[in-house]
Amino acid sequence: MTNVSIIGIGKTNVREHWDTSIRHLAWYAIEAALDDAHISEVDSLYVGNMLAGQLSNQNHLGALIADFSGLRGIEAVTVEAADASGGAAVRQAVLAVKSGLVQTALVIGVEKITDETGTPVNAALASGLDADFEAVQGLTYAGAGALLMRRYMHEHGVEVADFAGFSVNAHANGASNPMAMFRNRLKPERFAMAPLVADPVSLFDAAPAGDGAAAIIVTSTERARDMVPQPVDIIGSALATDTMGLHDRGDILHLTAAAISAARAMEAASVTVDDVDLFELHDSFTVMAALSLEAAGFAARGEGWQLARDGEIGLNGRIPISTLGGLKARGNPIGATGVYQVVEVSQQLRGQAEACQVEGAKIGMAQNLGTTGATAVTHIMRVSQ
Amino acid sequence: MTNVSIIGIGKTNVREHWDTSIRHLAWYAIEAALDDAHISEVDSLYVGNMLAGQLSNQNHLGALIADFSGLRGIEAVTVEAADASGGAAVRQAVLAVKSGLVQTALVIGVEKITDETGTPVNAALASGLDADFEAVQGLTYAGAGALLMRRYMHEHGVEVADFAGFSVNAHANGASNPMAMFRNRLKPERFAMAPLVADPVSLFDAAPAGDGAAAIIVTSTERARDMVPQPVDIIGSALATDTMGLHDRGDILHLTAAAISAARAMEAASVTVDDVDLFELHDSFTVMAALSLEAAGFAARGEGWQLARDGEIGLNGRIPISTLGGLKARGNPIGATGVYQVVEVSQQLRGQAEACQVEGAKIGMAQNLGTTGATAVTHIMRVSQ
Repeated sequence: MTNVSIIGIGKTNVREHWDTSIRHLAWYAIEAALDDAHISEVDSLYVGNMLAGQLSNQNHLGALIADFSGLRGIEAVTVEAADASGGAAVRQAVLAVKSGLVQTALVIGVEKITDETGTPVNAALASGLDADFEAVQGLTYAGAGALLMRRYMHEHGVEVADFAGFSVNAHANGASNPMAMFRNRLKPERFAMAPLVADPVSLFDAAPAGDGAAAIIVTSTERARDMVPQPVDIIGSALATDTMGLHDRGDILHLTAAAISAARAMEAASVTVDDVDLFELHDSFTVMAALSLEAAGFAARGEGWQLARDGEIGLNGRIPISTLGGLKARGNPIGATGVYQVVEVSQQLRGQAEACQVEGAKIGMAQNLGTTGATAVTHIMRVSQ
Repeated sequence: MTNVSIIGIGKTNVREHWDTSIRHLAWYAIEAALDDAHISEVDSLYVGNMLAGQLSNQNHLGALIADFSGLRGIEAVTVEAADASGGAAVRQAVLAVKSGLVQTALVIGVEKITDETGTPVNAALASGLDADFEAVQGLTYAGAGALLMRRYMHEHGVEVADFAGFSVNAHANGASNPMAMFRNRLKPERFAMAPLVADPVSLFDAAPAGDGAAAIIVTSTERARDMVPQPVDIIGSALATDTMGLHDRGDILHLTAAAISAARAMEAASVTVDDVDLFELHDSFTVMAALSLEAAGFAARGEGWQLARDGEIGLNGRIPISTLGGLKARGNPIGATGVYQVVEVSQQLRGQAEACQVEGAKIGMAQNLGTTGATAVTHIMRVSQ
């Protein structure tokens, strides 16, 4: 069986790129990844994107981005799973290389939120929920986060302030990442004063949507070792789903898909949570960070928030998360987020995370969620040995 | 290397399904495919869909359809490449099974055009063109077809009436297919009286968009032989792209992606055009049928239309096309079309096409195009030996 390794990474900073079209954003990240891999051609392209059809009236991004990036003619498709689109696109590239039919695959996660000409952003984001049973009732993405956070507070007896540590950590790391959307540190007392987005989710619980693009290039591990000095092996890959509607879940505080995909990826990688040196999780809301830590097995049920309180999620903590700012401070470019996570884990494993470096990181995990965890994609990586 | 075979097929009829939601449409086809394969579980799901985000405010179809179809928890994503989404989803399933990481994959192509609540249909369809250089100028999908047809007439000295044979053939076959959207035969003189959609494309040149869903289930050829009496082997699979904008093509009358993907699929299958017994091509417009025949090598440049004139595309002709009605008469459920094509080729190879049967069909080809051929996916199939 072919094993798969990352030979190139690239990304743009995440912000409001008012003056940059979606195809330009994609190209900037692709150019960086091609340069990083020292190649100019690939065999296929997987685009992770959720919103271009609704916000930019542009579907068919595979052919568009391939051509605009100087890769005219190659195999190219878009992969969509709401805000898990980026991770899902990485997964398709892994399958493609493993199939033996594709030698070198490029993944581009790209999202353009500003300057939208179609559906309003919040309505478009809500299309990742169940349209007939949730969005039609007025539920927004932030509203779904609020339902989860309120329930978590109720069941586990915690307060809004108990979530502050996730946001403080993300901003502390984002402040050191030149590509982050928000580079300001956040004090816990400022967190408490934040305006509400959807009670009890405040501005500092919710990750900001932003424009951005991130790219990786993968090929067989065998080829990778001849091509670049520090290939990063993808040693575990799994995608699982759950119900779309929160109302269909027996227990909304257990992210079943996240748990299953994490367990499968760890099994494939022959590692346990104790072996994982950092975890780029999907902190779209602070409560999602807590639930993700619990689902993957880094904390017992109801105790994920304690890792933040106890400083265990920092760069020197037991399980560093959001090491370059996470969705909260690096920014959340929706369908691109999952590729940013894989790029960032690669930076860490290559020792290229600069002020955000997790010292001695050998094994890293990235987990990308679709909305409330209806889709979960987990990838585990290690520097090639 | 694992080879891939189809063990189950299913579909709904194509029409205006006003009373059926997108999840129900998908489920009807999935249920039929599961029944056909005599199984109740699969490992992963690939959804071919273009428009649900724009028309139904519903993205994230992978998780939604998996859950609604009783497959909660499995790997599931949407694959999009405009109206080539269905074929592209089949391609992902082939890669997934070949990778060895997925044992059994389900592909569902589904599109819901009627009862749309978001973007108007024609604006949504135009999102498969280049938004910044074509659609923004007012170019529609039919308008793009008109540019190609006008140029074809100019370069090759043919008249509107010379395209009639494609539509007459499609309707003749559709009349015998109980699942077809239009089951009326069409006389050439009626073709000539059709109202214009986009000069010179008339109502009978343009395939009607409709609601529908089609599903296939694939697994390794080795397993397939133990599971069903008549597995259909996918012996060739290729996806290629071209420029999005017609203005970027050196020769708009050569469908480069279609030619490349057909050549690659035939090479992989070790067959030539002479071996292909039927060809389900992408007759979104009559001119696209002519251009597809030429790109794949069934006719010389500028001579594709002659196959229609000479009756060579009929069920008993040299190269039968649109054998169950094609996009024109079976109907064009946009992102589902590519899966319908593969289902229909499977029916033919299994000898289950009833009044539409191509006698003795052993090798069939399906080719799904994205808009003007910016994406082309070709699959070649044969009954398992």
